[in-house]
Amino acid sequence: MQSQAQKQQNSTSSLPFKLTPSDLVTQNIILDKGDVAFKRAEIKRYFNQTFEGYEKLFETLVSDEAFYLRPCSLRHPLIFYFGHTATFFVNKLTIAKLLPERVNPRFESMFAIGVDEMSWDDLNDAHYAWPSVDEVRAYRKQVQAAVNEFIDTVEFSFPIDWNSPLWPVMMGIEHERIHLETSSVLIRQLPIDQVKPHDWFPVCPDAGSAPENGVVKVPAGEVNIDHQDPAEYYGWDNEYGVHHAEVPEFKAAAFLVSNQEYLEFVEAGGYETSDYWSEEGNAWREFTPDKHPTFWVQKPDGDSSAWYLRCMAEEIPMPWNWPVEVNSLEAEAFCHWKARTTGRPIRLPSEDEYLRLREHSQALDHQGKANINLQQYASSTPVDQFRSGDFYDVVGNVWQWTQTPIYPFDGFKVHPIYDDFTTPTYDNKHNIIKGGSWISTGNEINGHSRYAFRRHFFQHAGFRYIESDAEVKTHFSTYETDDSVAQYCEFHYGEEYFGVPSFAKSYAQIAIEAAKTNADFAGRSDLKVLEVGCSVGRASFEMAHYFDSVLGLDFSARFIRIADQLKEQGHVLYTIPMEGEVMEFKEKTLAEYGLSDVAHKCEFMQQDAVNMKPIFQGYDVIVAVNLIDRLYEPAKFLREVHERLNEGGLLVLASPYTWLEEFTEKEHWLGGYKDEGTGENVMTLEGITEILGENLQLVDGPFEVPFVIRETKRKFQHSLSEFTIWKKSK
Amino acid sequence: MQSQAQKQQNSTSSLPFKLTPSDLVTQNIILDKGDVAFKRAEIKRYFNQTFEGYEKLFETLVSDEAFYLRPCSLRHPLIFYFGHTATFFVNKLTIAKLLPERVNPRFESMFAIGVDEMSWDDLNDAHYAWPSVDEVRAYRKQVQAAVNEFIDTVEFSFPIDWNSPLWPVMMGIEHERIHLETSSVLIRQLPIDQVKPHDWFPVCPDAGSAPENGVVKVPAGEVNIDHQDPAEYYGWDNEYGVHHAEVPEFKAAAFLVSNQEYLEFVEAGGYETSDYWSEEGNAWREFTPDKHPTFWVQKPDGDSSAWYLRCMAEEIPMPWNWPVEVNSLEAEAFCHWKARTTGRPIRLPSEDEYLRLREHSQALDHQGKANINLQQYASSTPVDQFRSGDFYDVVGNVWQWTQTPIYPFDGFKVHPIYDDFTTPTYDNKHNIIKGGSWISTGNEINGHSRYAFRRHFFQHAGFRYIESDAEVKTHFSTYETDDSVAQYCEFHYGEEYFGVPSFAKSYAQIAIEAAKTNADFAGRSDLKVLEVGCSVGRASFEMAHYFDSVLGLDFSARFIRIADQLKEQGHVLYTIPMEGEVMEFKEKTLAEYGLSDVAHKCEFMQQDAVNMKPIFQGYDVIVAVNLIDRLYEPAKFLREVHERLNEGGLLVLASPYTWLEEFTEKEHWLGGYKDEGTGENVMTLEGITEILGENLQLVDGPFEVPFVIRETKRKFQHSLSEFTIWKKSK
Repeated sequence: MQSQAQKQQNSTSSLPFKLTPSDLVTQNIILDKGDVAFKRAEIKRYFNQTFEGYEKLFETLVSDEAFYLRPCSLRHPLIFYFGHTATFFVNKLTIAKLLPERVNPRFESMFAIGVDEMSWDDLNDAHYAWPSVDEVRAYRKQVQAAVNEFIDTVEFSFPIDWNSPLWPVMMGIEHERIHLETSSVLIRQLPIDQVKPHDWFPVCPDAGSAPENGVVKVPAGEVNIDHQDPAEYYGWDNEYGVHHAEVPEFKAAAFLVSNQEYLEFVEAGGYETSDYWSEEGNAWREFTPDKHPTFWVQKPDGDSSAWYLRCMAEEIPMPWNWPVEVNSLEAEAFCHWKARTTGRPIRLPSEDEYLRLREHSQALDHQGKANINLQQYASSTPVDQFRSGDFYDVVGNVWQWTQTPIYPFDGFKVHPIYDDFTTPTYDNKHNIIKGGSWISTGNEINGHSRYAFRRHFFQHAGFRYIESDAEVKTHFSTYETDDSVAQYCEFHYGEEYFGVPSFAKSYAQIAIEAAKTNADFAGRSDLKVLEVGCSVGRASFEMAHYFDSVLGLDFSARFIRIADQLKEQGHVLYTIPMEGEVMEFKEKTLAEYGLSDVAHKCEFMQQDAVNMKPIFQGYDVIVAVNLIDRLYEPAKFLREVHERLNEGGLLVLASPYTWLEEFTEKEHWLGGYKDEGTGENVMTLEGITEILGENLQLVDGPFEVPFVIRETKRKFQHSLSEFTIWKKSK
Repeated sequence: MQSQAQKQQNSTSSLPFKLTPSDLVTQNIILDKGDVAFKRAEIKRYFNQTFEGYEKLFETLVSDEAFYLRPCSLRHPLIFYFGHTATFFVNKLTIAKLLPERVNPRFESMFAIGVDEMSWDDLNDAHYAWPSVDEVRAYRKQVQAAVNEFIDTVEFSFPIDWNSPLWPVMMGIEHERIHLETSSVLIRQLPIDQVKPHDWFPVCPDAGSAPENGVVKVPAGEVNIDHQDPAEYYGWDNEYGVHHAEVPEFKAAAFLVSNQEYLEFVEAGGYETSDYWSEEGNAWREFTPDKHPTFWVQKPDGDSSAWYLRCMAEEIPMPWNWPVEVNSLEAEAFCHWKARTTGRPIRLPSEDEYLRLREHSQALDHQGKANINLQQYASSTPVDQFRSGDFYDVVGNVWQWTQTPIYPFDGFKVHPIYDDFTTPTYDNKHNIIKGGSWISTGNEINGHSRYAFRRHFFQHAGFRYIESDAEVKTHFSTYETDDSVAQYCEFHYGEEYFGVPSFAKSYAQIAIEAAKTNADFAGRSDLKVLEVGCSVGRASFEMAHYFDSVLGLDFSARFIRIADQLKEQGHVLYTIPMEGEVMEFKEKTLAEYGLSDVAHKCEFMQQDAVNMKPIFQGYDVIVAVNLIDRLYEPAKFLREVHERLNEGGLLVLASPYTWLEEFTEKEHWLGGYKDEGTGENVMTLEGITEILGENLQLVDGPFEVPFVIRETKRKFQHSLSEFTIWKKSK
């Protein structure tokens, strides 16, 4: 086997690549068509531009020592980020089985897991014996050579899609482009004496007084996204899928909020007034020592003081007409204050409202003139310089917070070689930013991107407020990771395994058929159903196709929460095990099962089946499937169930009779034991018949229906539930 | 609904039935053909004969008080047995859903579970508030009426088989016939002053000196049993199935051992000499105070003493020419003593040897003249009165112990409404008795019956010794009840569920196919296989069809014991759960899978796959299926496995990769985790490939093969095992 070193000697790659300032400006690569040789060269150039452009950024540090300072107590020092983007290429190519061997296993361990601001922000406090900057530089050269070698020799065809061998390369490039921006933020957070200006990264010289802001009408319109792989450009998994929204008319501020406009909030005591802040905002406000935006610097100026702005590598007198940079919590507090003082419904836009504004203003079409893609300055510019339609800076200058926690579009799938890029952000704690900043490049500005950060994080990000009475619907998009809840999500809404049809749908159909053939229900269209043990609700929803109303009860509030969420929001996210702790990420919707239109007929409540409130009565059909062998006193439920049924009504009962002392003490088993008196085996159906036979009549069954519950990718519970259908005769 | 009382009034039954002494003699009922009306009357008569004949036996008790004495510290008083046979009818008809309601639920609880000498002999010490004898008599009358009513009205057809509604009636009758005999033993164990002679139960007046015993040749021959439901007569489940044996020539004693012949052993100090006794025999000998047969009574007679014999209801001077009555341990000790003193291979016959003797002597053909079926006396008779061929008392007089612990014939199935009649006796602790006694009636004497008692129990039983050098093979017939062992017995040898073929057979075939297509094995017929993790051995046996030798290793000695037993004895018994604690009884044989002829090519040993002895090397094929995710250090096994393989050899590896910390600490998982260094998901196949790739080459796979493990009647694990096949290149 050739060593990596030998491979490098064989390489046709002509390193080093010679970077010029114009290389910092990116042109998105079209991936879905082209000529192989040309595309190979284009991607190679894009890779080297990015790889060396990233290194260029670190020239703003005054010394190697600056690489080892923590810009923030919660982050690694920059040396980590310097190595990290190189290691990322190696790791992704390695797990895609495209690289013959690692470049430097020790470095690739050290630089692999860090503090990704898009991921968890808890810092690993283990001692890191960081290598020297020169060692990392040498390592980066090795990786650069290996990737060039790979690009030179890989066989590929069009489209370059998720499964293309070039996808990990594109992923690595775009990953590095993200870090170009986020590292610029970290550099901006270093002490000013650790950084120095750099002529490739010039600060805008224009500053002055801000224009008067005001709101301008955005007409109602639709947002329609249907973005699928393969697509024209590289995309992160969260960008794909289908999304449709109707956006009512609203008004949006013409300008991003400037430092000057924001100063009013600061001077109005905004940082001291908890009323303006959300609960999360107040928690952050009490934690942070600053009473002003984080990049604002107050310096003595004679008897009073003067405001300065910290740029990436310089401090300059406050440019009042530049956009203010704040986190989402500050932006939200400003809007509350503004709404309070004006009496108008001022708030942050949702993602959909931003998209509507962008389309209305045709901002993407004029992006070439915006302060974006490092095509103008390495800093903000005045808020009134780049206009499209009635609005300024709809793209570029600084990112714009939305009030939308990021969520998956319908049809979302996790990219298998980077399953922790997006999924950890589906937690209702990461809000979407839109528009891009002066240093946003590549995928960040192709119009599809959806980046999200924790609401207290700082980026080169500010905001534009809007005025609207419309309520913003927040998608509940936390991944359900509770093992049993997720398992039942998959059981109800997931794949079919071993050719066994959806059990919840099957038994809903059994209940519907039983009702259709019940003479006492003839001509009735007002049938009320009670499902006891509805779990995460699929069968209740399915039954709502036929019945007038369905009430689903379950002992577990965790299950009921999912059923409710599906009813209200139409979708659920969950993770299920593949092997060991490696998880698969799933999104399921009511829409894909045609249940959206009937969900409103369902209600869900937490309730103990053995101790149900008297109010639960008067049902035409009661369904209790896979319930009784999980009750602590099943006989009590069965003894009372007829009281809750209308005359002529039906009970659909089913269970695999898996009696376990964990759930039901042996003395309460309905069967599956030798009778103490007679010594004879008592089967569960006998026990059920003895109880139900007093008040109900068996009208169908017993018959068995199979069901499959997935435990891992290769292990399943495959069971049979025995059904009996009982009638309360008139 | 009609009450039971009303039903009785409606009954056409002409109770009471008028019993005469001749009714005590039974005629077996032909069940497989006949006329419905005639058969109804015949069975009804047989029922009433039996029911009232049983009551007649209790007339030997001097008073009602005698019903409440315990004949033995380990047994219920006779009042239990008096009620029990009636309750049995009600219980069996109830669980067969043939009786509209119970007769007396309290009695039927009290009289249901007792000390059945064919079942467990541990006594329930709970206080019993026994009813009066008159109450039980009245209860018996009620039951008799109910059963007569049932017989009068039940619809049935021929054959009357296991599923016939008359089967529970026949079962009840034959059950009562057993208790007629066993109660006669209990009465025989009551103090003599509690019993009285009865003219329906006369003691034989003939007694005298015993004839000289000697052995007579029985030529070699076959035993062939193929007894299936429906059969001519009623049978207990243990009588059905297929059995074949070749019996070598032996010599058998002409007479049963008489009291006189046995006296020699007693006087030779047989009860004081541990050498003559088995381990179990010595344990019993030390426990029991008697130094002579239990029904022998020594009474002062002037200066010395004289021997008497306790009969059922009388004591008589010792009839020396009657057969001695002993338990199996005493009979065995006598044979040891006799062998020692004569230097000849004297021992008890096996069941097969008895059957061969019975056929050779044509004893069944002359049964009408034997002391059996209460047709002569209510006691033994001299050993030289009933001759058939060269032998006396081959049937009748007293039962004859065999040295065969009862075991199921091939194809044994448990009768569902009486699953504890036979199965608890398959424990290697219950020896078969043959031939019947003076009070054996009904099924007991139809030639098919197989009764077995604990070796220390007393019946009207003695023995005949034989002389033979042939070794007696004992069937190991304990039901495996260890949950996981029984589960794997079913997994390997049991039913196929959900249409998934036998997994062990499937992967054996995969190994065979891999070997057949391996060029390095061309022309080889001496291939050696090592199966690591062979569990209960099915795949090892299957592989022996093709390979020259198969060594199966497993960490669990419990599994290896089953594999060994199958190799040695060809069958296994186990119980698996249906619902809760209700079990299904299973018997499986190698023969039914065509594995008997190749089993000798297999060996099984306990071994830790992670720490295998160096001696295990030089194999052409190593098979390790569903193993690695149960090892505490799977990497160690994989790293070393190539050393145990010959050059050109194959490794067949498979697993569902179900990693659990219970078996494998997380640091030892081969996959299913995020790499700590890189943060990337590591799948198990990658981990395997990394280790095995060093020394072996992947030649086939990965591909998945499904398997199903039954947990209950309605719950299964349905999994997929991923196979890879690796080769050690020359």
